[in-house]
Amino acid sequence: MIHFDSDYTTGAHPSILERLVATNAEHTAGYGYDDYTSRAKELIRKAIGCDQAEVMFLVGGTQTNATAIDGILAHHEGVLAAESGHIAVHESGAIEASGHKVLTLHHHDGKVRAEDIEAYITEFYADETYQHMVAPGMLYISQPTEYGTVYTLNELEELSDVCHRHDIPLYIDGARLGYALASEGADFTLRDIARLADVFYIGGTKLGTLFGEALVVTNSRLLKNLFPLVKQHGALLAKGRLLGIQFEAMFADGLYFEIGRNAVEQAIRIREAFRNAGYNVVIESPTNQQFFRLPNNVIDRLRESVSFNYWGARGATHSIVRFVTGWSTTADDVDRLIELLQDL
Amino acid sequence: MIHFDSDYTTGAHPSILERLVATNAEHTAGYGYDDYTSRAKELIRKAIGCDQAEVMFLVGGTQTNATAIDGILAHHEGVLAAESGHIAVHESGAIEASGHKVLTLHHHDGKVRAEDIEAYITEFYADETYQHMVAPGMLYISQPTEYGTVYTLNELEELSDVCHRHDIPLYIDGARLGYALASEGADFTLRDIARLADVFYIGGTKLGTLFGEALVVTNSRLLKNLFPLVKQHGALLAKGRLLGIQFEAMFADGLYFEIGRNAVEQAIRIREAFRNAGYNVVIESPTNQQFFRLPNNVIDRLRESVSFNYWGARGATHSIVRFVTGWSTTADDVDRLIELLQDL
Amino acid sequence: MIHFDSDYTTGAHPSILERLVATNAEHTAGYGYDDYTSRAKELIRKAIGCDQAEVMFLVGGTQTNATAIDGILAHHEGVLAAESGHIAVHESGAIEASGHKVLTLHHHDGKVRAEDIEAYITEFYADETYQHMVAPGMLYISQPTEYGTVYTLNELEELSDVCHRHDIPLYIDGARLGYALASEGADFTLRDIARLADVFYIGGTKLGTLFGEALVVTNSRLLKNLFPLVKQHGALLAKGRLLGIQFEAMFADGLYFEIGRNAVEQAIRIREAFRNAGYNVVIESPTNQQFFRLPNNVIDRLRESVSFNYWGARGATHSIVRFVTGWSTTADDVDRLIELLQDL
Amino acid sequence: MIHFDSDYTTGAHPSILERLVATNAEHTAGYGYDDYTSRAKELIRKAIGCDQAEVMFLVGGTQTNATAIDGILAHHEGVLAAESGHIAVHESGAIEASGHKVLTLHHHDGKVRAEDIEAYITEFYADETYQHMVAPGMLYISQPTEYGTVYTLNELEELSDVCHRHDIPLYIDGARLGYALASEGADFTLRDIARLADVFYIGGTKLGTLFGEALVVTNSRLLKNLFPLVKQHGALLAKGRLLGIQFEAMFADGLYFEIGRNAVEQAIRIREAFRNAGYNVVIESPTNQQFFRLPNNVIDRLRESVSFNYWGARGATHSIVRFVTGWSTTADDVDRLIELLQDL
Repeated sequence: MIHFDSDYTTGAHPSILERLVATNAEHTAGYGYDDYTSRAKELIRKAIGCDQAEVMFLVGGTQTNATAIDGILAHHEGVLAAESGHIAVHESGAIEASGHKVLTLHHHDGKVRAEDIEAYITEFYADETYQHMVAPGMLYISQPTEYGTVYTLNELEELSDVCHRHDIPLYIDGARLGYALASEGADFTLRDIARLADVFYIGGTKLGTLFGEALVVTNSRLLKNLFPLVKQHGALLAKGRLLGIQFEAMFADGLYFEIGRNAVEQAIRIREAFRNAGYNVVIESPTNQQFFRLPNNVIDRLRESVSFNYWGARGATHSIVRFVTGWSTTADDVDRLIELLQDL
Repeated sequence: MIHFDSDYTTGAHPSILERLVATNAEHTAGYGYDDYTSRAKELIRKAIGCDQAEVMFLVGGTQTNATAIDGILAHHEGVLAAESGHIAVHESGAIEASGHKVLTLHHHDGKVRAEDIEAYITEFYADETYQHMVAPGMLYISQPTEYGTVYTLNELEELSDVCHRHDIPLYIDGARLGYALASEGADFTLRDIARLADVFYIGGTKLGTLFGEALVVTNSRLLKNLFPLVKQHGALLAKGRLLGIQFEAMFADGLYFEIGRNAVEQAIRIREAFRNAGYNVVIESPTNQQFFRLPNNVIDRLRESVSFNYWGARGATHSIVRFVTGWSTTADDVDRLIELLQDL
Repeated sequence: MIHFDSDYTTGAHPSILERLVATNAEHTAGYGYDDYTSRAKELIRKAIGCDQAEVMFLVGGTQTNATAIDGILAHHEGVLAAESGHIAVHESGAIEASGHKVLTLHHHDGKVRAEDIEAYITEFYADETYQHMVAPGMLYISQPTEYGTVYTLNELEELSDVCHRHDIPLYIDGARLGYALASEGADFTLRDIARLADVFYIGGTKLGTLFGEALVVTNSRLLKNLFPLVKQHGALLAKGRLLGIQFEAMFADGLYFEIGRNAVEQAIRIREAFRNAGYNVVIESPTNQQFFRLPNNVIDRLRESVSFNYWGARGATHSIVRFVTGWSTTADDVDRLIELLQDL
Repeated sequence: MIHFDSDYTTGAHPSILERLVATNAEHTAGYGYDDYTSRAKELIRKAIGCDQAEVMFLVGGTQTNATAIDGILAHHEGVLAAESGHIAVHESGAIEASGHKVLTLHHHDGKVRAEDIEAYITEFYADETYQHMVAPGMLYISQPTEYGTVYTLNELEELSDVCHRHDIPLYIDGARLGYALASEGADFTLRDIARLADVFYIGGTKLGTLFGEALVVTNSRLLKNLFPLVKQHGALLAKGRLLGIQFEAMFADGLYFEIGRNAVEQAIRIREAFRNAGYNVVIESPTNQQFFRLPNNVIDRLRESVSFNYWGARGATHSIVRFVTGWSTTADDVDRLIELLQDL
């Protein structure tokens, strides 16, 4: 069986696991007060080009989003997000559970547009009853989006501009950020992300760690007293060094970027293989998630030796499927898939 | 340096880590829908002697407490707990953040008494204004307590009785439950815990896993729809099998119990060594946490080669310290400590 | 100046105020434990034809919605509502502040359709990831809607059916219920509302009381322990009898229905006057709120002697306006408006 | 029957009710945007000697406390209060429902001491684990306290000092503030309250309005965006002018102070009558609440013609009772009580 279900179906990248094994017997302080964590924070500060950034490691993505958003918003504020955004759909109400409304915007292949945000905020304050409504207090975007698409540098700059013109922070959910950075035609760097966002996170879980997300605060006015907030949200790991060790391994020699590059490279090969075989590429994704419209009998045939995601029917004879690559996807896996496609 | 700081300063027990390494490359479903997790749940159901119990794995303790308590309590209810209880002191307001009051009771070396709970509930409903007050909706106890003490079987039965007589569930925080089960003179088993509590958790983090707590619901009327609740609380691990693999390793061959026994054995040796050396044993703890009152100059001398916790001054010349053992504590570590004490 | 701004711009109906004055010096128990409140509850139970209904008086509408919805929903559930619903737009995030998501549905002149709810619920549970999403836990509708429209008996029955088929309660926001009951062509009664809804409220503030809303629970499985929940939500009035006295006055001799009938009668006269004068009736409302599209110069002229609501521009030359009648609107007020329209 | 149960068992002071009646038919803007409300705010600003203060009218006390405290505290903070404080006991968990812990302090006849607050804060930050605990973020006191006692000017200054030295705001619950201002030996004024507190409220409900509390913010860094916060907490009255009219009546000609003086005068007469009759005065209260220890047979006899509060047994033969005066208590009521005591 070849696996293209998701980027979190295997354990950790071997280099990371090796570090966890090598350090297992050491005694360190808990809750992130260890040297591995300090070094990992320092490496991230270097990678993003921002010495003053505050870095905090949390365990998972929903937790990180809920903690950051709860910490940023004032009581009367909500978070603007694409209606397809992870926080709007797939977090079991974690944002609302902390008391805040997700204010949804139409999406364009998963992306929001600066002009829509401008219009939202302008109309909001033009409404005489705005004091009775939830004020837009920050913008949430995911990079790449839930559809595998990527904001260009220009789009990011426009979003950052519109946010800061209206004095609301820009928060980037980077659960799969490494795949955006390695995406086909990417014209932005991690430093751009850090420069344009006020708060963002660098996801580990989907990029090859066992778990862990690095929350980065570059706008020093935000998220003060982060430690107790993280603890209160149940997001503080007792053996905090596990996060430090993994992120140190990720950022010491560029492993984070390498994992992204490999996965994207294989994903693009998959996309082109399907396209060449005459199938419909549903979204023009430059990242590790690819969406195809396939005849149902093709899906059935593939399933005998390949695992992937079913995303719903399109008419009586076709369906949408998702193929995802990750740290453990090999060129050989894709070679075998290509062969299968040729044999169909 | 010999380490007696805490039971979460090292990584995982080697047998557990080995399993994580051995299974690292496998592809499994996420969020706990894998076979390792199913097997681990089954092993726990067997160990507690309750086929119908629902078992759910979460990442950490604060998270587990907050999720379970939030899920059990009705809006107008609070949770009864010792004023020294972890939820009352050391969870950064996680219980209140989910909207519930911690109703504190006086403690006796960390323990609450059934008679105090009886009195609390009786007085509560005798108060004409009780509808304006937070109703006691459940009881939280930790076994062992934050002071290292252990409820006897008789005490547990009394607590269970008083709770059920008043129709409120008994919840046991088992962050260190393995040390209570292995404690000197323990007269109860894991089956007793499962029989007397309505909900409890078997802690992994402090017993030798990298992380992870097994929440067990034996009262089927409670905590329905646990999955989305866990997700909403940010407590759902994407690579859920990491929890399953660790708990499978813990319960397949009794490792969980073995770790508890070893740590308690060494802790008792430490206690007796201090006692024999003429120092004051502050709390008569039968578990892996030991508290001593030492002269400050002794503390300074010990610190040159031993690490342990400082708990506060007692007068000008003495202080309280805490020594903790864990899965990685060896008889040799304790031998060396004993030698040091003899040489002081 | 003639006033058609809203139905809460004047004080209380004189008969109600008179009762408040007449009883002012009496001493009564607080928090609703007085005889006026008991009698008012009894009168409401009679009016709705449900002896077992629990009735609780709260001060205002947002408060009532937030309390009821918070009390009904489980942690993992949200409330289905029209995207134009009051709770989705104009309550400053009160529902989210209590931890719950508003799940919005498309509206048709303010109304939701049973088929859309059926589709929502069916698709929800068909989605493999539904456990990561907020479950639809109840339906909120407003009768009449924010657009002045009214659900017919048949529509209410369909909504009640779809809800109960899927085991979720139907909650009706009756802030202006009296105007729906008196609406042109109304084919349902207060008893139908009580029979079809599980929980609803009979609004006083917009029907002629100084303030006050009567929350009615006909489904006895819901909203247990309502008293402390109301108190916790800050919705319990110390001098509770003020609510009892006002609702007793409303329901003792049919004043509640009379106020509705008068306001609707005058509103229909206004609608027809505008229509006859050749202006566009934007929504075919049978209740006390009427919406017209008027040329801006007509608006300016009217404003010299009439007050009403501006709802936004429609092109360069026209705008939408809202006219609202209430307990204090007189036939004479409307006569004067009609004259003004004829003189334009 | 003579009534000394509470200060909220009757309606409004006749002068206030008269104003409500006189203005009943007027049309005004809703939600506090009317002229009565503006004038009332201005009168309060004058009365407290602080032109910049923000004033907001809410309906009830629990609501006001919950809104203010929620608005002031950061996520990781709790509110310090006497363990006998209203927010700690009698608000059905409203503070916790908004996510915050009440950090209780020992009380001395209902009062907290500056030295205890100093010690609490000092010890808190001296604790190495303080980041895992709820930080003291503000101080709540009630003036007068729930025991009828009053902080002296010196005590208020000490509390204000200790708060500001540690950079936490002082919040005063003034549900019965008028009785403290009129208390026997009061050495402070409303201006002192405004000068020493950062936020406080002037209670109306217990001082002769139908309902209503005036929240006053003198520290302009706090409680920004108060309007949507109040709405979100369900504390915004649609017919907001009812609050403005009542507080205008209270502060236009000193009615507020007069009501306080009358009630306290009669309360002191009651206290001395009991003392002279040889009964035990339990708390030396200089305000409108008086507590006595009476033989049970005396209580039974009094109850035939007097209503008052029973506060609990003291031994087999005696009980504690509370007598409360209010705007509607007359000298004649007290004369009759005194006669009754003489005839016992």
